[in-house]
Amino acid sequence: MEKREQLYEGKAKKVFATDDADLVIVDYKDDATAGDGAKKGTIRGKGVVNNRLSNNLMKMLAEKGVPTHFVEELSDRETLVKKVEIVPLEVIIRNVAAGSFTKRLGVPEGTVLKIPTIEFSYKNDEYHDPLINHYHALALGLATQEEIDTITKYAFQVNDILSQYLLGFNIRLIDFKLEFGRLPDGSIVLADEISPDTCRFWDATTGAHLDKDLFRRDLGGEEEAYREVMKRLLGE
Amino acid sequence: MEKREQLYEGKAKKVFATDDADLVIVDYKDDATAGDGAKKGTIRGKGVVNNRLSNNLMKMLAEKGVPTHFVEELSDRETLVKKVEIVPLEVIIRNVAAGSFTKRLGVPEGTVLKIPTIEFSYKNDEYHDPLINHYHALALGLATQEEIDTITKYAFQVNDILSQYLLGFNIRLIDFKLEFGRLPDGSIVLADEISPDTCRFWDATTGAHLDKDLFRRDLGGEEEAYREVMKRLLGE
Repeated sequence: MEKREQLYEGKAKKVFATDDADLVIVDYKDDATAGDGAKKGTIRGKGVVNNRLSNNLMKMLAEKGVPTHFVEELSDRETLVKKVEIVPLEVIIRNVAAGSFTKRLGVPEGTVLKIPTIEFSYKNDEYHDPLINHYHALALGLATQEEIDTITKYAFQVNDILSQYLLGFNIRLIDFKLEFGRLPDGSIVLADEISPDTCRFWDATTGAHLDKDLFRRDLGGEEEAYREVMKRLLGE
Repeated sequence: MEKREQLYEGKAKKVFATDDADLVIVDYKDDATAGDGAKKGTIRGKGVVNNRLSNNLMKMLAEKGVPTHFVEELSDRETLVKKVEIVPLEVIIRNVAAGSFTKRLGVPEGTVLKIPTIEFSYKNDEYHDPLINHYHALALGLATQEEIDTITKYAFQVNDILSQYLLGFNIRLIDFKLEFGRLPDGSIVLADEISPDTCRFWDATTGAHLDKDLFRRDLGGEEEAYREVMKRLLGE
């Protein structure tokens, strides 16, 4: 499958058309941004790690019943995926308080939440992806009730499966962001990526960050941390 | 029933103990604040209007099956209510986009929402009452699932009853904020107030503001507007 014209360039990925109207190729970059685009930089090798990790996790999730956009890994940075219409919601699951949640609500980072939470942000760059709830999503016509129910079910399934899987590699899944897409038949699949860019991974023993917070917070060691996650999960 | 020691002074009301441990007296002030306390002022006569209107609406809601804290109006500004433990959630229902909703999401003021929405803010002055959802409320232990279900049911009932009632006085109910309390037996009742301080009322013909937005936005005429709402609803 050959890359044709570029359809989209985001902060961390490019998307290309193919000769099949139902398939696109995602090409992962090393570019990193943080703080709503205020900080820009590069995490060397990130594109390779995110591509390979995300594909690995999506394959595993599909086997356990969560449909995804994944079709085939083409190279270290390129993957063939089903073309979807992205549902304009960032879907965030939290197990432990961290990041914006702690700043907005005054809950100390590391607080284990009484239940895992799901939240939706409206994907809208101009308004900085504002937090909404499912009533707002319906009221603004961003998704149907059925889609929201499906997305909620899949997101919690991903949390259960991934939390348990990662603990096998001594990694705690603190929180993560998912995006979902609509296929031409209207069904919902997991899309975008699952990586240290979109998840908070903490070493289960030391609590060390193994994710983009190292870059966001200028802590350093992000290249090594991304490679460490790949090494634990893929054995290389 | 006599006022005993002052238990609390808020932005718009004082609360006093009585000789009955289960009852308190609310005393409505004319003080007004806006913009998270940035603007302070007075709306002359507001305390009288809000006390009498809120009591009138709560009596009507109780007759239609929504339990409230209201016991007895003692004077133009004073009301005897059941003492409750306030659930630390601001419960906001929106029928039409206005105020913070339009600014956060870029939806033009006046947009009729596809469905009425409910949202919760965590009552926390230090963090400026941040928007949360019901998962967050559970995760932080602010309320139980049963309480959230009850509050959601009552809030939408209030919306249905109040929207229809107000249209009879040529007033559109745009949005409003409710607070709920726990009685000693654990049951949930509507508390706080329902007034032009806590609701957006638009004249159904002209769209004129009949609420605190006149004060918030320095439009003027707030005293007349508050009196106008009282005149329409109470005939005086």
